[in-house]
Amino acid sequence: MRSDLLNLILGLLPSTDSDRTHSHPELAQFYAMLRDYPQRGGKGLRSELLLLSAKAHGAREDTPQWQSALWLGAVLELFQNWVLIHDDIEDDSEERRGRPALHRLHGVPLALNAGDALHAYMWAAVQQAGVPEAYEEVLTMIHRTAEGQHLDLAWVAHHEWQLTEADYLEMVRLKTAYYTVVIPLRLGALAAGQLPDPAFTPAGEALGAAFQIRDDVLNLQEDEGSYGKEIGGDLLEGKRTLIVLHWLSSASAAQQAFFLNQMALPRTDKDPVQMDQLLDWIRESGSLNYAQQFALEQGRRGLNLLKEALGRTADQTAAAQIIDLVQSYVTRQA
Amino acid sequence: MRSDLLNLILGLLPSTDSDRTHSHPELAQFYAMLRDYPQRGGKGLRSELLLLSAKAHGAREDTPQWQSALWLGAVLELFQNWVLIHDDIEDDSEERRGRPALHRLHGVPLALNAGDALHAYMWAAVQQAGVPEAYEEVLTMIHRTAEGQHLDLAWVAHHEWQLTEADYLEMVRLKTAYYTVVIPLRLGALAAGQLPDPAFTPAGEALGAAFQIRDDVLNLQEDEGSYGKEIGGDLLEGKRTLIVLHWLSSASAAQQAFFLNQMALPRTDKDPVQMDQLLDWIRESGSLNYAQQFALEQGRRGLNLLKEALGRTADQTAAAQIIDLVQSYVTRQA
Repeated sequence: MRSDLLNLILGLLPSTDSDRTHSHPELAQFYAMLRDYPQRGGKGLRSELLLLSAKAHGAREDTPQWQSALWLGAVLELFQNWVLIHDDIEDDSEERRGRPALHRLHGVPLALNAGDALHAYMWAAVQQAGVPEAYEEVLTMIHRTAEGQHLDLAWVAHHEWQLTEADYLEMVRLKTAYYTVVIPLRLGALAAGQLPDPAFTPAGEALGAAFQIRDDVLNLQEDEGSYGKEIGGDLLEGKRTLIVLHWLSSASAAQQAFFLNQMALPRTDKDPVQMDQLLDWIRESGSLNYAQQFALEQGRRGLNLLKEALGRTADQTAAAQIIDLVQSYVTRQA
Repeated sequence: MRSDLLNLILGLLPSTDSDRTHSHPELAQFYAMLRDYPQRGGKGLRSELLLLSAKAHGAREDTPQWQSALWLGAVLELFQNWVLIHDDIEDDSEERRGRPALHRLHGVPLALNAGDALHAYMWAAVQQAGVPEAYEEVLTMIHRTAEGQHLDLAWVAHHEWQLTEADYLEMVRLKTAYYTVVIPLRLGALAAGQLPDPAFTPAGEALGAAFQIRDDVLNLQEDEGSYGKEIGGDLLEGKRTLIVLHWLSSASAAQQAFFLNQMALPRTDKDPVQMDQLLDWIRESGSLNYAQQFALEQGRRGLNLLKEALGRTADQTAAAQIIDLVQSYVTRQA
């Protein structure tokens, strides 16, 4: 994340060293928990996209519009961080950005509560931005994301594997596309005082699918490299991905039974040897390649829609930077 | 809760019967989860206090000010409901308002996510109210409540029992007093277009302590009656209360060891017979009575401060109703 944005966020959050934390040392721990994920060095893709969108729509640095864009960038990063704290609890993930997940460090109750507080600080940043339309955008972003998250988690809770490609794509549209692409593009325009192009929505939906599928592919790759989460973690968590749904549809009856048997077990009861066997089968099938091609196709479609929409904006240098940024994410290696 | 307020809340939340839920049946479950706690018939104390405060400050029914007050009442009830969903997870409570807690019905991941979505709907209600100052008040309310919750949960997580009466009262001030008394009184004034009296803060802090201690006493009473939570649940959850801290300070070394031994165990490993023994000791000690007297004293002090502040408001009939309502809560039986 850009250092000016990180500083804005850390300045909004309470300090761990104050009269209050001296008289109540437990509060120093609380505030440190709020500051933890933001300081772990997320990529800051969403805020970067928002700032470039603001620039493309004519917001120039050192203007009040730019300051609004920065605050809205802080909103997106704070959103990402409180959602990740809660997601990590919901999925019982082990790691986040190369360190133990917050609830693995402090237990579920304290981490859940810290996520709630960070959610409220996100709304404080909305207030700071002073862009009236942002309120509705942020509500839409949370509602869509929570609906997508519900689909994802409900399928896990209900052991539901009879899913189509369309089911998966609807989940990703809700869970990923809005907060990763659609809303950043829209908020950038609004910060610059412009009406967002309606084409940002279909463009963002296609690109969001491309990003998520790329992420799913990286999660099943052979080499951890600089990828910040555990390899195969999605499979351990029983996540529905395009890869697994595609493999499942062409697997033998015996393989399907083997798979459903492992997936019915809680994460801690899953057998490491059998899980490795599953990983091998999936990697040996054409499903990783199928998903990769699918992501590239969605990415191409989204980029074309986006190029057309951005062709109408004021600053074409910034518009080109958006295309570069988005392209690099569709094909990223980590 | 008043029926007009409940209808306002249910109208804000998505319907379980729509085109979206027909094409994605899982979303019908999600929306039903959002509507569950609000429909369980909470007492609506906080919104009632807010509406009476608005009336006392001159807001008359069927005016835009009254509509603002109703929306802010919806904010308080939505706040209470999303916080309860998350609290029940944090404390692993069994019941809420006479039914299983939401995470006991649907599992932690889905309930946690539903609480987050309900949190966002609370902000939609803030927006509907159209009272600019409400934004800051709601942020303060969440921050204070989350800080108090952190103290409470951190003591549990760190097995901290070396606590003073002052520690407990600070936790209650943060965790209960703001959202139960201080902010409802302030938001009522703001809805009516008046500046809140600064004395609402010390009055609300004393009354909040009285409410919480009364609740702690009810939780340890002999007869469940119409009390909506399990009797002794606080003790099972290892909650720090004035009663337990008082009993502990006068218990024998053997009793203290017996107590700390049980408290070090997770809830499910606590021995029912030994827990009953602890309940008996606490009930036989003077600590319930001590806490009850403490609550009455705090209640008296808070009521006097509140009477003085409300003596300066426009509608003295409503002011008297506030005093009656608050008094009934300090001495309530369920």
